[in-house]
Amino acid sequence: MANVRNTIPEKTVERLSEYRRTLLSCHRQGITHIFSHVLAGIHGITAVQVRRDLMLIGFSSDTKKGYDVKVLIEFINDILDSRNTMNIGVIGMGHLGQAITRYFNGRGLKLRITVAFDIDPAKVDHTIDDIPCYHMDRFEEVVANNDVSIVIVSSPTAVASHLVVPIINAGIKGVLNFTSAPLNFPQGIVVENYDITTILEKVAYFVKEGEDCEEGAGN
Amino acid sequence: MANVRNTIPEKTVERLSEYRRTLLSCHRQGITHIFSHVLAGIHGITAVQVRRDLMLIGFSSDTKKGYDVKVLIEFINDILDSRNTMNIGVIGMGHLGQAITRYFNGRGLKLRITVAFDIDPAKVDHTIDDIPCYHMDRFEEVVANNDVSIVIVSSPTAVASHLVVPIINAGIKGVLNFTSAPLNFPQGIVVENYDITTILEKVAYFVKEGEDCEEGAGN
Repeated sequence: MANVRNTIPEKTVERLSEYRRTLLSCHRQGITHIFSHVLAGIHGITAVQVRRDLMLIGFSSDTKKGYDVKVLIEFINDILDSRNTMNIGVIGMGHLGQAITRYFNGRGLKLRITVAFDIDPAKVDHTIDDIPCYHMDRFEEVVANNDVSIVIVSSPTAVASHLVVPIINAGIKGVLNFTSAPLNFPQGIVVENYDITTILEKVAYFVKEGEDCEEGAGN
Repeated sequence: MANVRNTIPEKTVERLSEYRRTLLSCHRQGITHIFSHVLAGIHGITAVQVRRDLMLIGFSSDTKKGYDVKVLIEFINDILDSRNTMNIGVIGMGHLGQAITRYFNGRGLKLRITVAFDIDPAKVDHTIDDIPCYHMDRFEEVVANNDVSIVIVSSPTAVASHLVVPIINAGIKGVLNFTSAPLNFPQGIVVENYDITTILEKVAYFVKEGEDCEEGAGN
């Protein structure tokens, strides 16, 4: 798949998503303009980084009053959002799957969790938080009928590897994997492995390093 | 806080955590050695990257049989783990807090969720998944008595900003924030803002880019 456009770097995409959430919150509070250093401060980064990200997407600002909040929101919308709402399926409606669904829906985004999958008879063919839950056996059919393009994998880690083939066969284009099993897909399927243990171990490592430094400095 | 040691880059720390989980799984299956390209394949990266990460921590391998799984696990343990178990508190025991607690505990790590906080009377002073849940009013006292050094913030986004001062006052050293409100702390407190919406919007962006490319190519 040749890339015919200048794709924005991953980290910039993440920050654009974060800026937009802050801008939407400003907009709701009636704030019309924001300076790059204020936006930077909220996100714990430098104003140079904010300006570089916005330059990368071709946005320039009125420097006297700062960025126009509403215009910048629409500019980021054009970059990040697809023309139509993208439908998302959740595989595994345990605590994590339900937490994600509640957290994510009703936020007025161009992404919506529309179907769920499980194998637990107590969940299959029921509605959970307004989302119909189907048996995994019907995955391919339900994905096709509901025009699902992204799945969130919140199943037990032990079954995650068995989901790869169904996901490929169903024509899914993007996977957000919360299990501890890294999943690999052929080119053309976007995958983000997002293991909570990794992030927690990272935080713990840097906490430990900080403590070791303090001890080393004789505090 | 001067850094007196060579701290390992964030991304390498993440990968070491991921390698270790794979190595532990190999070890449980009785696999004694693993080649760098096999480890790389499981994680969807190059063998060069694996070798570079392990070189960075000073680990060298018997190239004929690959890395010794058990020795490498112990080597990574020495790098990532603190000498004593680190105690973690969860702020907000809704679906997400409970999902994280269940997911994380009982994994035999040097990190353990030992206390939880909420303000819901149905949860406060009860035990949830074997974790005692306290009222947020008692945060500072409970953190001190239980030697908690890291907190996971899984509260509603609207209250997240009110948690910053209590977290600083209690002497917490590391924060893993799952809410949509970016939290900033003074130097010396490690913070990881980990918003699910951002990651999902990132996946959606790259899915959209892929589709646009296909259309552009006339498919």
